[in-house]
Amino acid sequence: MGMEVIRRESSMLMNLPLKSLKVDEVSKVGRQGPYFRDGLRQIDYVLTYHVQKTPTSVRRQPSRSFARSMRDSLMRSFRRTRQTPDPQEDPEIAAQEHQSDYHEDDQNFRREEFEENLREMGLELERDEGTTIPGMGFLKIHAPWSVLCREAEFMKLKMPTKKMYEVKQGSNIVEKINLFIHKVTEPLHPKVEESKSQTAKHLSYPFSRERQHLFDLSDRASFFSSKTRSSIVYEVLKRTKCTRTKYIMGITSLLGNGVYTSAYPPHDGDIDGIQAEPNDRKILYEEWASYSIFYKYQPIGLIRKYFGEKVALYFAWLGVYTQMLIPAAIVGVIVFLYGCATVDDNIPSMEICDPRNNITMCPLCDRACSYWKLSTACGTARASHLFDNPATVFFSVFMALWATMFMEHWKRRQMRLNYIWDLTGLEEEDLIDTDHPRPDYEFRVRQKTLHKESHSSKNEKVKLTCTDRMPAYMTVFIMMCFMISVTFAIVFGVVLYRISIKTALHMSSTPTFRSNVRATVKGTAAVINLIIIIIMDEIYGALARWLTVLEVPKTDQSFEERLIFKTFILKFVNAFTPIVYLAFFRGRLVGRPGKYLYVVGNYRMEECAHAGCLMELCIQLCITMLGKQLIQNNLFEIGIPKLKKMMRRRKTKMDAQQEEEFKKNLQRHERDHFLGAFAGLNPEYMEMIIQFGMVTLFVASFPLAPLFALLNNVIEIRLDAKKFVTELRRPPAARAKDIGIWYNLLRGLSKVAVIVNAFVIAFTSDFIPRLFYQYMYSPDGTLHGFVNHTLSYFNVSDFQPGTAPLQPMHLGYSVDLCRYKDYRDPPWSDTPYEFSREFWAILAARLAFVIIFQNAVMLMSDFIDWLIPDIPKDISLQIHREKALLVDLFMKEEQGKKPPRSVQSQHSPPLARSRPSSNTQRNT
Amino acid sequence: MGMEVIRRESSMLMNLPLKSLKVDEVSKVGRQGPYFRDGLRQIDYVLTYHVQKTPTSVRRQPSRSFARSMRDSLMRSFRRTRQTPDPQEDPEIAAQEHQSDYHEDDQNFRREEFEENLREMGLELERDEGTTIPGMGFLKIHAPWSVLCREAEFMKLKMPTKKMYEVKQGSNIVEKINLFIHKVTEPLHPKVEESKSQTAKHLSYPFSRERQHLFDLSDRASFFSSKTRSSIVYEVLKRTKCTRTKYIMGITSLLGNGVYTSAYPPHDGDIDGIQAEPNDRKILYEEWASYSIFYKYQPIGLIRKYFGEKVALYFAWLGVYTQMLIPAAIVGVIVFLYGCATVDDNIPSMEICDPRNNITMCPLCDRACSYWKLSTACGTARASHLFDNPATVFFSVFMALWATMFMEHWKRRQMRLNYIWDLTGLEEEDLIDTDHPRPDYEFRVRQKTLHKESHSSKNEKVKLTCTDRMPAYMTVFIMMCFMISVTFAIVFGVVLYRISIKTALHMSSTPTFRSNVRATVKGTAAVINLIIIIIMDEIYGALARWLTVLEVPKTDQSFEERLIFKTFILKFVNAFTPIVYLAFFRGRLVGRPGKYLYVVGNYRMEECAHAGCLMELCIQLCITMLGKQLIQNNLFEIGIPKLKKMMRRRKTKMDAQQEEEFKKNLQRHERDHFLGAFAGLNPEYMEMIIQFGMVTLFVASFPLAPLFALLNNVIEIRLDAKKFVTELRRPPAARAKDIGIWYNLLRGLSKVAVIVNAFVIAFTSDFIPRLFYQYMYSPDGTLHGFVNHTLSYFNVSDFQPGTAPLQPMHLGYSVDLCRYKDYRDPPWSDTPYEFSREFWAILAARLAFVIIFQNAVMLMSDFIDWLIPDIPKDISLQIHREKALLVDLFMKEEQGKKPPRSVQSQHSPPLARSRPSSNTQRNT
Repeated sequence: MGMEVIRRESSMLMNLPLKSLKVDEVSKVGRQGPYFRDGLRQIDYVLTYHVQKTPTSVRRQPSRSFARSMRDSLMRSFRRTRQTPDPQEDPEIAAQEHQSDYHEDDQNFRREEFEENLREMGLELERDEGTTIPGMGFLKIHAPWSVLCREAEFMKLKMPTKKMYEVKQGSNIVEKINLFIHKVTEPLHPKVEESKSQTAKHLSYPFSRERQHLFDLSDRASFFSSKTRSSIVYEVLKRTKCTRTKYIMGITSLLGNGVYTSAYPPHDGDIDGIQAEPNDRKILYEEWASYSIFYKYQPIGLIRKYFGEKVALYFAWLGVYTQMLIPAAIVGVIVFLYGCATVDDNIPSMEICDPRNNITMCPLCDRACSYWKLSTACGTARASHLFDNPATVFFSVFMALWATMFMEHWKRRQMRLNYIWDLTGLEEEDLIDTDHPRPDYEFRVRQKTLHKESHSSKNEKVKLTCTDRMPAYMTVFIMMCFMISVTFAIVFGVVLYRISIKTALHMSSTPTFRSNVRATVKGTAAVINLIIIIIMDEIYGALARWLTVLEVPKTDQSFEERLIFKTFILKFVNAFTPIVYLAFFRGRLVGRPGKYLYVVGNYRMEECAHAGCLMELCIQLCITMLGKQLIQNNLFEIGIPKLKKMMRRRKTKMDAQQEEEFKKNLQRHERDHFLGAFAGLNPEYMEMIIQFGMVTLFVASFPLAPLFALLNNVIEIRLDAKKFVTELRRPPAARAKDIGIWYNLLRGLSKVAVIVNAFVIAFTSDFIPRLFYQYMYSPDGTLHGFVNHTLSYFNVSDFQPGTAPLQPMHLGYSVDLCRYKDYRDPPWSDTPYEFSREFWAILAARLAFVIIFQNAVMLMSDFIDWLIPDIPKDISLQIHREKALLVDLFMKEEQGKKPPRSVQSQHSPPLARSRPSSNTQRNT
Repeated sequence: MGMEVIRRESSMLMNLPLKSLKVDEVSKVGRQGPYFRDGLRQIDYVLTYHVQKTPTSVRRQPSRSFARSMRDSLMRSFRRTRQTPDPQEDPEIAAQEHQSDYHEDDQNFRREEFEENLREMGLELERDEGTTIPGMGFLKIHAPWSVLCREAEFMKLKMPTKKMYEVKQGSNIVEKINLFIHKVTEPLHPKVEESKSQTAKHLSYPFSRERQHLFDLSDRASFFSSKTRSSIVYEVLKRTKCTRTKYIMGITSLLGNGVYTSAYPPHDGDIDGIQAEPNDRKILYEEWASYSIFYKYQPIGLIRKYFGEKVALYFAWLGVYTQMLIPAAIVGVIVFLYGCATVDDNIPSMEICDPRNNITMCPLCDRACSYWKLSTACGTARASHLFDNPATVFFSVFMALWATMFMEHWKRRQMRLNYIWDLTGLEEEDLIDTDHPRPDYEFRVRQKTLHKESHSSKNEKVKLTCTDRMPAYMTVFIMMCFMISVTFAIVFGVVLYRISIKTALHMSSTPTFRSNVRATVKGTAAVINLIIIIIMDEIYGALARWLTVLEVPKTDQSFEERLIFKTFILKFVNAFTPIVYLAFFRGRLVGRPGKYLYVVGNYRMEECAHAGCLMELCIQLCITMLGKQLIQNNLFEIGIPKLKKMMRRRKTKMDAQQEEEFKKNLQRHERDHFLGAFAGLNPEYMEMIIQFGMVTLFVASFPLAPLFALLNNVIEIRLDAKKFVTELRRPPAARAKDIGIWYNLLRGLSKVAVIVNAFVIAFTSDFIPRLFYQYMYSPDGTLHGFVNHTLSYFNVSDFQPGTAPLQPMHLGYSVDLCRYKDYRDPPWSDTPYEFSREFWAILAARLAFVIIFQNAVMLMSDFIDWLIPDIPKDISLQIHREKALLVDLFMKEEQGKKPPRSVQSQHSPPLARSRPSSNTQRNT
């Protein structure tokens, strides 16, 4: 066929160096930068694929060379660790991939067609098969100027025009203040060009070939940055389809089916070494991805220039979040210090600690425990004052408003970035492509088509309907419910552990054991919870992905959304169930002396120590936050990669220096091939969202949470930065105007936080009972007598048989009445042990507090939301000015054109005659 | 000056018929349609102005002609009624306007400059001074083709291209269902073309002169519709400035300063009469603005085509709202009928009505009233069951979700309309112009500049700062607070009226009076409230406008927002204060027998009848809704215009036929001049929002509200339609993607509705006490004994001296203990007359209900919100398909162009040489 001939010709053409460059020049240039072999054409994208083993290269020779062995093992370990997300997990696709391994010819055929189509679209290609890395083919793609222009026009890429204009930041005073702030924070800014001059901006306009004269095209090589070039090529790749095979296949399908193994744009250059010329990546490495400059702002503009808007938005968001955590952390520390300072003036804890208040408490467990004196709970009472004082109420209102401020601040920042990055004119629809079906989906549709064709021969478009997906949906639903109940079961298990250990320790005769009972149980339980949370976190992550694959969503966007949704629910439930249990259920379901609630045989449900529920919540939160962050960040994100590297080295029996040496000889795109694949930003966001939940949801009980979060995030930013700059392949630059679904999740969390905090203050802390006592019962308006008021009386003769303490004389005297913490009628009233009038009144007060708190805070949040405009005023002014300037520009151009020839006649001469009056009139 | 010459020349040129049309032809054509005198050029916009009285036309001659007298009085009455909003109200501007009346020359000068500038922009003008209507000049504006094209490009107007494509409405089944629905509802669709074919749509693309070949320009006259033409001209008008005078003046300033008196696009044609050729206005009149077709859908597409997107969105919104009210009304009626059906099975009212339950109640007022038997409250108890039954709780949950559904439905409808109207690619910023300062603002700035210049000579841009505006802000704040307290005072006044009338009537000896006391008082009080609400509504409307003028907002948009904000607050407070008082305060602040609460001397605060608070709330709501709608709609919107017309006719001493005759002789734009000015959509929206508040806020107490609203809106739609088609000048077509601030207000209201309904159910109705009794106290699980449980005991010996009834033996027996509705301890307990344990428990239950109801409903709403995608699936698919089709189209065009000449060399030949490789490679 003629086709075949053309293809062969073209592939020969491709491999020839087209320019008459000298060979040594080529090799030199080609090695340093990401260029074609001619040293002129930039590599904008790289596709890799497995090369058919040619018969000459017989592998596994006994006398294989050192370098070869290294390469092979590198390749193998790489193949194992690389994260092409789905085909490995979906058994069907994996099977298909396996099958297609047998049809390497078929793959070759598709590759050739795809490459031909790419060339049809105007791209220029160069193949690089197994030259340095055996078994690996590289297809280097270069987009020539014409293609760049065409695609930039289609993508409505806004490019800077020649026209500059002065950026005014509001009135003179505002400008001066801004300048002053900028000067003061000078040392905090990274040493990057963009952070300096902001007084003038290029007017930008969607690139148009007809209006090329608007743009400064004097340096074509740098007009489109490497990020833009790669995104343009990616756009073309996505649009190109293989149609000659039975099923239409796009790049995603080709990747999914193993025709190509990966696709990535090459990095700009090296981060170190002598050869490394100054490039954006190196600047980022020095001015961003370093722990030593943790106090500096991030060079967001440069990040955007190098990684694209989506990645830059993540880091901008992380930056704003971290920045906003600073005031929250400061206020939190102040609140904590206020608690410390006032601990000695706190009347309730003074009363508890005072041994003169000879209050005998009822035993904490059946038989084994005996009566105890309230003054022994002195330590807990004092400690719990640290987290349960009026300042806590203020702090949780503060944090609710802080969350709103944060959201607003981010919205404004986002808008400002959109403006600076020239995204203001773009619509959502221009940015996301929801049209490319995923390979899994295509595969399923194909299966269905085959199935259908055997039954009927209708020619309608087949797609997956609800009935096709029903089994998957059912599985997902059942699995989600199951996993959530597993989480509940685990928490209940830990509770049982606590109860049983406590009882066992109480039973033991060693007195030192007994005295340490509380601390031991609390500590071990919290640590167990932490470990379970971390383990389950990993399991749930994998499970959510598996479930999403089962669902076979149509597009990548839908896949991502469903995955996020599932992961969020599972991880959230996992992280917060123990905390919610501690905050709202613990100590509430105990019954009362003489009528305790028993679970699983005859375990009594656990009580809190006097005023101790909040304290335990606090410990749990502290351990979870610290532990999760330390372990997940340091161990998982730093430790494991290092361990892997070590393992790999040991396997290849090569030290670091040798590996470096080998890599140095590789070309840019080949070196990138050994880096990890970019796996999306979702795990990063997810981690932060859970943290945001910790910071806002239970902040009423743990005012130090923002501080912990702040410390973690300062490290997190640089850690992620390092990962992006040094360890991952360059991600395809994606445009984005916002952080998408994450914003909604944040919003939802901050709404839930309001009500959770309301409940924590109302029910977990003693805030309402204290207020109630002070204003309704106290004889002198102080809290004196509060402790006595909260304790009900119990007649020891009312113990159920077999539950009375074995050692009733433990305290040295015989006890007739013991006290317990509850509002119940005394034994001598008409309704003994019923809830008393105070109980109901306080309950009403608690509930009223919840309603008032929730609605007041929500109202305040909405008010702040309404008060702060979403678009900063200067930005909205600038946008309007830009628009006016553009119209001006075009009007001037228009008038400049007019004299030589009429606009009308130029464009539509055949119709101009029908309206002769219009031209005559204009000659005024 | 040479300038002067050119201007004169041009104005001479303008008045000449340029084409060699015969005179009779001109006059014929010119009279019928909105055309220039040449009969060819369409009038796209009209500016009117007062003409200097020429010395020849001496007015007020004793022997004036009939027609002249008619015209004069018409003019006078018109000037009085026309609603140019601000200059008349702002004393400063009015003064300035007055002053500028003395400088007619100055005005002429400005007009000439403005017209010259318009001609500079390419518009064609024709003057028409005092030919038919004395003292009135008309400047007719025509936009020639070249201007239309240029501006359409600037405005990014999406126009239909030649390329058609098939619209698919989802899968086959969905399409069939849609078709079926469309067939079933066939008689409901208006007989308008657009409602028929929806299977194919023109691909639309922002108009571009370079891509003219894409568009179907075969009929240039109709390519841009009259609406589009007028909006284009309006755009040019807004951009044109008078710079030659001391201060730069735009069209808004010119209008505000009386240089021009009004600006409007002419209507398309007549709605009736023999001359009326078929035009859009006539079709709208027949197929939309008629009461007889109240059951039909509105021809939204045609409304948009004629009035522009903003007006069409209002009617679309009103239509969706009315449509959504149908299910709400049906469910509401069912709930009401359920109440009616179960009234005889209702145990509490049976118990009240049963005379065997010989319950003696405490007197309802001091001294004059005596003890009474509970069975006399039988009627009220039965009636209140109609509105206070379990179905009400269901209904208020239903309505909360209904509100969410409505918002979602509207969002989707809006998106669909955006798609159909080709607004999807546009940004907010393209649609609103926030840059044109209002004349008031400019005037103030000018004053400030003058003031400043006398002090210092800095050349910085002057603008109004906070300090300048402080007095206005303070006034606004104080006035708003004052007006709100006036509303409160009025409500309190009505309460006092009720108390005093009641006491007076009780005192009177006539027994018929006494028995009718309740009904009389309730009825008159509700009517008084209604009348006050309606009167204050008008006052507040005017006041809000005055306050906003005081503030001198910079732009029209800001003016509108501030006005809406103030009007909304005032009108809302006005409409809802009496209702809120009845729902939450009435009967709650009465104290208890022996310790009543007295206000203003010795008036006892009013109590509700037994179970009667909800009933009164219901009556008030019913009267307010019905009365407000009947009076405001029918009287104000229909009656007063008719009355005015009648008055005018009597004054001009001319019957209807003569007036018609006179008007028939006028040209289109002159006839439009006698119509009312378009005053914006805000009053219409405001009316609907208040109604929406009535429908959602207290729906728990009045399930018939949606029905009343539905009946009102069916009329409202046609009423507004008539107004727009027949009584108002054509509004300048404004583009809009959404209903703006009103959506947020709706959202806010539906949020508030949830909590208000929660409180109404929890506190105003007896729902919670009944539930509580049934599950906690009832011996047999039914409501038997509930009435007795709700009544506390009072020992008559505990009456305060002087308050005991004068006729203690009124019932025929001596009373020792009387009963009153409250949960208090009996006189014989340890704590007599204290709130009992039940009181606190029920209070806790009520509060818990509020929390659960609020959060559950909010969660459900959010869930619905999340479940229903904002963009309908088929629309999002279409949008993506359109995008793909466009790219296809351009790629084909690209490839079609390629063979004859390279794209690259065509556009940038000088640079093509630097990259010789790119062209060589493409020849595959």
